[in-house]
Amino acid sequence: MSLARVHNFAISLDGFGTGEGQSREAPFGHAGERLHQWMFKTRFWHDMIGKPGGSSGIDDAFARQFNPGIGAEIMGAGKYGFPGWHEDPEWKGWWGPNPPFHTPTFILTHHTRPPIEMEGGTTFHFLDASPAEALEAARKAAEGQDVRIGGGATVVREFLAARLIDHMHVVVAPILLGRGVRLWDELEDLEKDYDIEATSSPSGVTHLTFTRAGG
Amino acid sequence: MSLARVHNFAISLDGFGTGEGQSREAPFGHAGERLHQWMFKTRFWHDMIGKPGGSSGIDDAFARQFNPGIGAEIMGAGKYGFPGWHEDPEWKGWWGPNPPFHTPTFILTHHTRPPIEMEGGTTFHFLDASPAEALEAARKAAEGQDVRIGGGATVVREFLAARLIDHMHVVVAPILLGRGVRLWDELEDLEKDYDIEATSSPSGVTHLTFTRAGG
Repeated sequence: MSLARVHNFAISLDGFGTGEGQSREAPFGHAGERLHQWMFKTRFWHDMIGKPGGSSGIDDAFARQFNPGIGAEIMGAGKYGFPGWHEDPEWKGWWGPNPPFHTPTFILTHHTRPPIEMEGGTTFHFLDASPAEALEAARKAAEGQDVRIGGGATVVREFLAARLIDHMHVVVAPILLGRGVRLWDELEDLEKDYDIEATSSPSGVTHLTFTRAGG
Repeated sequence: MSLARVHNFAISLDGFGTGEGQSREAPFGHAGERLHQWMFKTRFWHDMIGKPGGSSGIDDAFARQFNPGIGAEIMGAGKYGFPGWHEDPEWKGWWGPNPPFHTPTFILTHHTRPPIEMEGGTTFHFLDASPAEALEAARKAAEGQDVRIGGGATVVREFLAARLIDHMHVVVAPILLGRGVRLWDELEDLEKDYDIEATSSPSGVTHLTFTRAGG
């Protein structure tokens, strides 16, 4: 069974998955990199950017669930690019020639364009589709493996609202952003569908895992 | 130095300190008692209601910080009574003849009335005042001891916004209420004033403590 999984999705204490004022210069708006400091310190991240060292405790253990078993990713247009990226025919995402996905990667957008093949196994596909339709396409591309729902907050929330997420790992960072895009809006009683575990880390963040109840 | 402290203040994952639709029959609205299940299982709570047993782990250790060193409480009108309580001259709070405060207790309300002396040391004082003014009055009544800011969410948020809280214990319960009164609104960058610790409990809740930085 191919699962739909969320990993390393960070929010502030007040529930924002990204800040306000996103732009080409500020991908996370006024949040900057503050939601992801916990990850930059892990061995998982150090390995990825080719830097020695990094922590190997609980933050690392969770962070490195990101890749194994994943055969495709779905992300929102707001993760793929700055507001207005679709007017730039040369835009190929934030990640340089070799993006960290290494699978077919589906971008949900009303501004579709032909697929872009990148180095390292990532191909960007542009899809104007509902969450359920996108998941069906991504599952086909994943060839039996799982599909990662990559964010941003709006996309994760829409997949949760459509009851399409099987496993979710959310990281609560001890900061208050005050404004931005909320993860939790309109998800009353979500806990009834999931077994939820909270694990606080010495780094200050709390890892929340949602596993579909009885799944 | 007399501190302003918050204890055992529970919120949902999506940040609501109480539900929607509060009434005489439903003090927490559609949230019911779900935010406080963690506390009912502690030895602290069992002791308070004269029942044997109860847990003595981390939830209990935090819960019983509620009383020691407290000389007065401040609460909002929404904690003291249902919407419209001020039209009932006989209303004396939810807690029966012997409320669990045992100190002077200040109710912030535009509908003031003369003080009400209850059993067990609780006296209700009704005050139409700003947070800073109320804290000054409560500190005087506390005679050198600390003042507990008792809630609800609106009152805790106002005291936080006015930078009047020295110590805060918030309990995040693994439920999503979807609607109600939010604790965290308009508190951008609050973390800069505090050392924040997160401690997850086997019961499923996460305890957050805010201690004024350098305090």
